[in-house]
Amino acid sequence: MHRKYIIPDEWKIIEKDFDPNLHPCSESLFALGNGHMGQRANFEEQYSGKSLQGSYIAGVYYPDKTRVGWWKIGYPEYFAKVINSVNWIGIDLLIDDNPLDLAKVRSSGFYRELNMKEGYLLRRFTAHFGEEKRIEVEVVRFLSMKRHEIGAIRYSITPRGFSPVITYTPYLDFDVHNEDSNYGEKFWEEVFASVASQKAINVASTKKTNFHVAAAMRYEIEANGRHITLYPENIQREKYVGNRFEIKAEDGITYTLYKYAAITSTLYYPENKIAEEADQKASEAMRIGFDQLLKEQAEAWARIWETSDIIIEGDPEAQQGIRFNIFQLNQTYTGDDPRLNIGPKGFTGEKYGGVTYWDTEAYCFPFYLSTRHPEVARNLLLYRYRHLPKAIENAKKLGFTNGAALYPMVTINGEECHNEWEITFEEIHRNGAMVIAIKRYFEYTGDLRYVAEYGLEVMIAIGRFWAQRFNWSEDKQQYVMLGVTGPNEYENNINNNFYTSYIARWCMQYTLEMVDLIKQLYPRELEVVLEKTGFDLSVEPKNWQKIIQNIYFPYSETYQIYLQQEGFLDKEQRLASDLPLSERPINQHWSWDRILRSVFIKQADTLQAFYFFEDDFTHEEHERHFDFYEPRTVHESSLSPCVHVVLAAKLHKIDKAYELYLRTSRLDLDDYNKEVHEGLHITSMAGTWMSVVEGFGGMRVRHKKLYFDPLLPRHWKRLSFKIIFDGRILEVNATQEATHIVRHSGEPITISIAGKETVV
Amino acid sequence: MHRKYIIPDEWKIIEKDFDPNLHPCSESLFALGNGHMGQRANFEEQYSGKSLQGSYIAGVYYPDKTRVGWWKIGYPEYFAKVINSVNWIGIDLLIDDNPLDLAKVRSSGFYRELNMKEGYLLRRFTAHFGEEKRIEVEVVRFLSMKRHEIGAIRYSITPRGFSPVITYTPYLDFDVHNEDSNYGEKFWEEVFASVASQKAINVASTKKTNFHVAAAMRYEIEANGRHITLYPENIQREKYVGNRFEIKAEDGITYTLYKYAAITSTLYYPENKIAEEADQKASEAMRIGFDQLLKEQAEAWARIWETSDIIIEGDPEAQQGIRFNIFQLNQTYTGDDPRLNIGPKGFTGEKYGGVTYWDTEAYCFPFYLSTRHPEVARNLLLYRYRHLPKAIENAKKLGFTNGAALYPMVTINGEECHNEWEITFEEIHRNGAMVIAIKRYFEYTGDLRYVAEYGLEVMIAIGRFWAQRFNWSEDKQQYVMLGVTGPNEYENNINNNFYTSYIARWCMQYTLEMVDLIKQLYPRELEVVLEKTGFDLSVEPKNWQKIIQNIYFPYSETYQIYLQQEGFLDKEQRLASDLPLSERPINQHWSWDRILRSVFIKQADTLQAFYFFEDDFTHEEHERHFDFYEPRTVHESSLSPCVHVVLAAKLHKIDKAYELYLRTSRLDLDDYNKEVHEGLHITSMAGTWMSVVEGFGGMRVRHKKLYFDPLLPRHWKRLSFKIIFDGRILEVNATQEATHIVRHSGEPITISIAGKETVV
Repeated sequence: MHRKYIIPDEWKIIEKDFDPNLHPCSESLFALGNGHMGQRANFEEQYSGKSLQGSYIAGVYYPDKTRVGWWKIGYPEYFAKVINSVNWIGIDLLIDDNPLDLAKVRSSGFYRELNMKEGYLLRRFTAHFGEEKRIEVEVVRFLSMKRHEIGAIRYSITPRGFSPVITYTPYLDFDVHNEDSNYGEKFWEEVFASVASQKAINVASTKKTNFHVAAAMRYEIEANGRHITLYPENIQREKYVGNRFEIKAEDGITYTLYKYAAITSTLYYPENKIAEEADQKASEAMRIGFDQLLKEQAEAWARIWETSDIIIEGDPEAQQGIRFNIFQLNQTYTGDDPRLNIGPKGFTGEKYGGVTYWDTEAYCFPFYLSTRHPEVARNLLLYRYRHLPKAIENAKKLGFTNGAALYPMVTINGEECHNEWEITFEEIHRNGAMVIAIKRYFEYTGDLRYVAEYGLEVMIAIGRFWAQRFNWSEDKQQYVMLGVTGPNEYENNINNNFYTSYIARWCMQYTLEMVDLIKQLYPRELEVVLEKTGFDLSVEPKNWQKIIQNIYFPYSETYQIYLQQEGFLDKEQRLASDLPLSERPINQHWSWDRILRSVFIKQADTLQAFYFFEDDFTHEEHERHFDFYEPRTVHESSLSPCVHVVLAAKLHKIDKAYELYLRTSRLDLDDYNKEVHEGLHITSMAGTWMSVVEGFGGMRVRHKKLYFDPLLPRHWKRLSFKIIFDGRILEVNATQEATHIVRHSGEPITISIAGKETVV
Repeated sequence: MHRKYIIPDEWKIIEKDFDPNLHPCSESLFALGNGHMGQRANFEEQYSGKSLQGSYIAGVYYPDKTRVGWWKIGYPEYFAKVINSVNWIGIDLLIDDNPLDLAKVRSSGFYRELNMKEGYLLRRFTAHFGEEKRIEVEVVRFLSMKRHEIGAIRYSITPRGFSPVITYTPYLDFDVHNEDSNYGEKFWEEVFASVASQKAINVASTKKTNFHVAAAMRYEIEANGRHITLYPENIQREKYVGNRFEIKAEDGITYTLYKYAAITSTLYYPENKIAEEADQKASEAMRIGFDQLLKEQAEAWARIWETSDIIIEGDPEAQQGIRFNIFQLNQTYTGDDPRLNIGPKGFTGEKYGGVTYWDTEAYCFPFYLSTRHPEVARNLLLYRYRHLPKAIENAKKLGFTNGAALYPMVTINGEECHNEWEITFEEIHRNGAMVIAIKRYFEYTGDLRYVAEYGLEVMIAIGRFWAQRFNWSEDKQQYVMLGVTGPNEYENNINNNFYTSYIARWCMQYTLEMVDLIKQLYPRELEVVLEKTGFDLSVEPKNWQKIIQNIYFPYSETYQIYLQQEGFLDKEQRLASDLPLSERPINQHWSWDRILRSVFIKQADTLQAFYFFEDDFTHEEHERHFDFYEPRTVHESSLSPCVHVVLAAKLHKIDKAYELYLRTSRLDLDDYNKEVHEGLHITSMAGTWMSVVEGFGGMRVRHKKLYFDPLLPRHWKRLSFKIIFDGRILEVNATQEATHIVRHSGEPITISIAGKETVV
């Protein structure tokens, strides 16, 4: 069951009344994260209803053996996925021997809140154990943004109308499974466990990848604020440690359990230290105390909002939606470790395994670039730089030579994990997005040194891939690119996809331009790169130029538009508006061949090129292409509407822009696609940010200069957003009438506002 | 390990010396079948070495849950496969408590023979149990062609140099598994078992499909021909029944065990009768006796050879190869049950699951049509006629309407079992082969009544599919067919594949012609079909004609050839001869995208159209197309060379024809593709027959008239082959100099020999 049930609020996600059918959705929507761990909103106490248990540690993955019907040469042996990890939240409860299980016990007054301003999850409910007997429960929990290994829980119970014996079992459990395990395997192996009074350590390792993870816990309990001394029983079984103790509770007294967990891994510590580190950190967390940790949490979030908040006046749901998106993006990725990245569902579910797609570079990059310090965007670039040797190996497997690189469609460690030939081997445009991100970074920061020291190496390898991937057509007397899948995955194995050929050409061209620029400014660094890559300036650029100058782009004289691919006009020309509702989304109703043959576009493809390279095309060209392609687009990817919002706003089609914006802004909160129980669409949330800032805010950055040209949806009273630019915090305030920019820090700056140069 | 080890012989397949590494290959090569059962050449006694146990019952299948990486709408839920069934051959043996296990006991003088003339398998060896102690073993076994439920074994042991106690355990075992089970499941469930002295019954059923199969056995033993009375111990465990007894054997005496098994199923008997039937048949077989059954077997095979033998003088290996192929084709399919068909590997292994592909209609049909009574070919047609409702349902799932039919790529019961979108949904040319088979049958037999009563219904449904599958291209102002995979599976999702569009057009055209013909000769039958299909003569033919007259076929003016598909000349033009040996076969060395982008052709595609529709093209067109396409063809399908042999012979390129013939004639005997352990290439064996008869024999049939125009490879002294035509047995004898046809039965007939009309 899926329905709109989230209560609008500026700063909070709120659910009232418990509905077990919606609980799996809420587990996603109320998920917590701190960039290093993710925790679905599972209950601390036992729950026998439908639930997807999920506790994820960024970077800790397992290579699950590939499942495939018909093997093809070049397919990867495994799909690496960030796996469900230790259950650190668990506190089983008996109330007079009755399990506190919301699937079985009658409850009332259920209230769940995700406090986005301060970064915690709150839950309240009353559980009934008879006519008069009930307990009031309040739980607060968070994953510390400041201390990325710490999770804390405050669990309060107040009996009313009786004095029950409460049996508590706080525990740490590695005996968990992934629902999406390809062969039903469990991924964790026991390494070490120890349990004593009010503390426990549990260490496990992943099979094959051999990550070691240690979880430690401390806890204490108070009655109306007064410490209680406990004599718990130790419990230990395979991959599980816990304590059990009883409290003879008194009517009206509040019993509060504080549980502190620390999770450390061999990502950051030597194998023989992680248990000790976890133990110390858990102990330290308890010493600091829950209230102080929560205060730190609020402060950390205040700092985040200071540089990234967006205010939309006149549209409360849009306000809630955009803050939710910004909140989740920051929960997913904090940018302090170049080994980590942003999965399409972040760490809010198992789908897509928390691994990296081109979403990062194409859709997420601008958000982190504009709202966080440059280090963060730089770490995203370094992630790919570190994977360059594997990208070269990957291209080699496919028959490419001379240090050409093909970045994987899906990866966690640089190796390809995807196994559909039409995607894995053919959706190669992803390579272009790597260079787009480098360009965006350079345009925004002016950091040419990064390009010279790291970026260029990536760009050369990608350029080499493209140079080999085009082939000369005797028939056309032009270079063609055969057998690709564009961003519009509703076409497979097509020839001369406009987007792919265009970005490929641009990559080669831009790389050559950057070589020239770096030659002037960082000649020594250039030498190092040329030496390392063996890029011969007297040979390869000439060869690339020959290709660049003679690439075939399919074009229709009739429509005066570039065709998405060769032969696009052979299709039966229909519009998305012709489709009966009963057949939408077509990917749930049509067989694959029918989708492929049809004219319908899953997500921006030709228009994606217009988005990335808008200055290459005239206003009229923008209009013609938008008017041709958008009506044929079914937007069945969550990454589609955002690009169209930006283009529609640019073309002053504000109603169209807002219509499309609605499809992205509350995608998860309103569960448009009936799949939020699987996790949140994290990467598409960055697309929503793009819709607001680049679309309605009209923000552009060219050569380290800012441009704004806001155009608000008709009923928005005010749009305000913050960015960090060249060391300054800027706040853009746009109303229907005027745009005003406030500089919160840093030096004055000249900005173009609606075409007028303004000093801020 | 794979190597050439089969000893040439005109009528026998012979292996000498036991090599455990080759045993899995021999298990395929020496497999037995009688059209209803198949039995790999597994040993009767226990064997702990590498082996693929295989006993198959035609038509008894299990729907194994589909394994797929990325599900797409329209994929089938299961892959139906003919499964490994009861082990009826088993006779475990202890020699003085030592298991007789050829993987462990030293053996010498191993000899294995598949006698193709008389249809049995013979094995001899000596097993050594010490310096002087040895036993001589001879085993003969066969599956009765006359009594399709009977298998018989004669197992003789002669001790030499000692007098051991021999412990025999003859048994029937349903506790078997399929190696290719998608989820490691066992497919059989126990139903009933009973065991007594020297007899046993074992009944099991398949999960889900609920076929019931009963196996019964009888056995007796003789010492130097004298009956021995036994007091065996009964053994019964899950899905297993057997007897165990000891013989105090004497040095030099031959102990011969005769084991008779009968296997019955609910394909032919009611569920409550199969056990009784099996029991009676086993008992009857024992009464008839091994020698008499073997005599019947030789007679049955003599009758088969009488109408299908081919003699090649001057090429002993070719002689062995062609007889082997004819033998296996007759072991696989006897044509007495329209529910059965020919799997690509028949019943000689698990691969392809013993189910039906377009191979039957495109490659196997002429063999059975020409060498067996017309009933057999008719039953092959009826197989598809019976599946028509499911083919219509299948097309409906893909969005087609109005009774359009798409026959499945892979099926056993009419439902699609394949699950690769580019094949399942796009390799639709298979539909055309159904009509080709009807046409071949009609041309050969003149049986228009069959077409009127059955064929036409299939043709209308297929014509309707094609009429919907073309779409109008505004751009080309012609009908196009987008998104198909042709016979050349090294191209996927291509547009305007010449073969597919051509056969589609022909199907529509031929159907309309047949409607006209039937209208004249079988008007009442036509009315029935029109009524049943709702085919409106005033509407649909007109619509079809509109399409027929304006279909786009890609054509190159430069080369003056039809292009395999649109854009074929955009590819880098290379020849197969340019490929380094280290990269062949390319499907074992190249990633899929590289194969797709390349010019290389897996199997005849455009030339397949020339093969089917040779009269539509001039000699010069044949030459141009052959010369263009063959050098680009890597023949990585076992079904490719045969078509080229026929065309090359027609073009008098006899060396080329013979070169290609070598790739098909001993494909399995010499294990060219290193995969014979998985089973034999049964359907490609029919292609070899086609190479000989249509290629070197130059046989054609047009309007129930025979044409021959032989052209022999240079070193062949004589080619002789037999066919059945219109009630006559004809023997064609061709030498390098002349062709002579002998009529063994029936009325005189006028035949065209090398262009000259001759009365035979």
